[in-house]
Amino acid sequence: MSLIVIGSVAYDGVETPHGKVDRMLGGAATYISLASSYFTKVGIVGVVGDDFAQEDHDLLTGHGVDTEGLERVPGKTFFWQGKYTPDMNDRETLVTDLNVFADFEPKLPASYLESKYLLLGNIQPRLQRMVRQQMKNVKLAGGDTMNFWISDFREELLATIRDWDFLLINDGEARMLSGETNLKKAAAKILAMGPHTVVIKRGEFGACLFRKDSYFIVPGYILENVFDPTGAGDCFAGGFIGYLAQQGFDIEGKIDRHELSRAVIYGSVMGSFCCERFGVERFRTLKRAEIDARFEEFRQFTSF
Amino acid sequence: MSLIVIGSVAYDGVETPHGKVDRMLGGAATYISLASSYFTKVGIVGVVGDDFAQEDHDLLTGHGVDTEGLERVPGKTFFWQGKYTPDMNDRETLVTDLNVFADFEPKLPASYLESKYLLLGNIQPRLQRMVRQQMKNVKLAGGDTMNFWISDFREELLATIRDWDFLLINDGEARMLSGETNLKKAAAKILAMGPHTVVIKRGEFGACLFRKDSYFIVPGYILENVFDPTGAGDCFAGGFIGYLAQQGFDIEGKIDRHELSRAVIYGSVMGSFCCERFGVERFRTLKRAEIDARFEEFRQFTSF
Repeated sequence: MSLIVIGSVAYDGVETPHGKVDRMLGGAATYISLASSYFTKVGIVGVVGDDFAQEDHDLLTGHGVDTEGLERVPGKTFFWQGKYTPDMNDRETLVTDLNVFADFEPKLPASYLESKYLLLGNIQPRLQRMVRQQMKNVKLAGGDTMNFWISDFREELLATIRDWDFLLINDGEARMLSGETNLKKAAAKILAMGPHTVVIKRGEFGACLFRKDSYFIVPGYILENVFDPTGAGDCFAGGFIGYLAQQGFDIEGKIDRHELSRAVIYGSVMGSFCCERFGVERFRTLKRAEIDARFEEFRQFTSF
Repeated sequence: MSLIVIGSVAYDGVETPHGKVDRMLGGAATYISLASSYFTKVGIVGVVGDDFAQEDHDLLTGHGVDTEGLERVPGKTFFWQGKYTPDMNDRETLVTDLNVFADFEPKLPASYLESKYLLLGNIQPRLQRMVRQQMKNVKLAGGDTMNFWISDFREELLATIRDWDFLLINDGEARMLSGETNLKKAAAKILAMGPHTVVIKRGEFGACLFRKDSYFIVPGYILENVFDPTGAGDCFAGGFIGYLAQQGFDIEGKIDRHELSRAVIYGSVMGSFCCERFGVERFRTLKRAEIDARFEEFRQFTSF
């Protein structure tokens, strides 16, 4: 296994201005795994209930995702339901039934322990740290977090990200974590917390990558129709780490800022595809050639 | 004269989270002229009252701006006062005293009539059209507008922009003018209204340029401190048209999409400098070398 992905596997109910789906496959680890599977060999770590459908399991394995680390326990799979605002820049959570996810304790199969790349999806910082510490040969580790951990588990989160190479975070969370409104200042404070690299996601407006000595900004891809933004940030993470794993990239070692920038572009590409259909639907048909074509499109519309 | 700029010349009272200035030089034509003066020879068309200060006149002429078209009449200069929200993405207008601007009828000096480039700042569409029609040898004409003209003078505005090469407009106005929320769809509708090129400004998030067969997106420059965004959109216009005029560029003729993209970058550069100080202050010290250095910085942080 090249890349290990850990996080939630869920069923989602989602309503956007384009429609409503009562129950479909979701969860951060699902999106990250599917997106990164186009780049590298992925193993997933998560938990599902006995209601987890075979066809959903098959979607993962059909993308070459190793599911040995996807534990199945009695009970129901994590369920989340939300409704987006008309402009889809915000959403309201209607239901959060943690179910079997409430007692999740990540168990890493022996075959995962030597993997070189690690993406820690948004879960309890303590669990993220536990996984990070078990993986002794990681070349590149990082992940995501959310407002709840920033506000209510700050010390634990700080102890966790101290050992990360990169943090992926959205703009609102970056401001919350750093106490700075300005993104350059926010990034500087976060870089001082440990990670060598911070990527700040700005939704439809793109993303910024900051390191101590350089930065990179990419605008968002303008889709003609955004059907469902759920999972776009996780797909960004999947494209970002997937590309770096494919390149055999080591952030601690000799680093090419342009490789990191290309990883941000692949992240943006995967996030944009995710929004084109509800849930994970787009990944049923998406081909690697489409990904590379959109990468080239980014080059076209940003070059001068 | 290479470029003619028409629009308001005003005194502004501005309050931002960084401070408050009761009265300072402002107005669209002022900002556009100052910004474009770094690229080409500019003539300004506008009106001021007998309270217009010699030092403000001198700031324009000190930048090589020809003021033969800046009419001085009895009465007070246009005064605008506004207050920005804490995030500076919105502002409230507190005072609009049109004063001598209420009866403004643009008068073009004979020496301006043969100019090749024309930037029509945000004024009554009828006046913009009047000026456009007087200038028979223009290679490249375009301008700006605002929500008030879009909602209350729509037919007049449509008749006006039909003859423009380019329209510069912010995202909210583009949505209002086109009736489309999505920027690609909005741009397509606006392109069908006449202009070959539409540039949609997105404030801190940058700008997009759309033509029938291509588009270009640039993220915004992240300033560590935005002191006052007043005039940033006009400075964008000045950098955009100024660069094209400097290059002797003809949008109707053989066009290089990359030249237009570089004009968008110079627009973004000038807008970013504008925000670094209150009002036009930054233009008292700004040097062309700083402009070109920031252009290169854009290249650095957007290339991959």
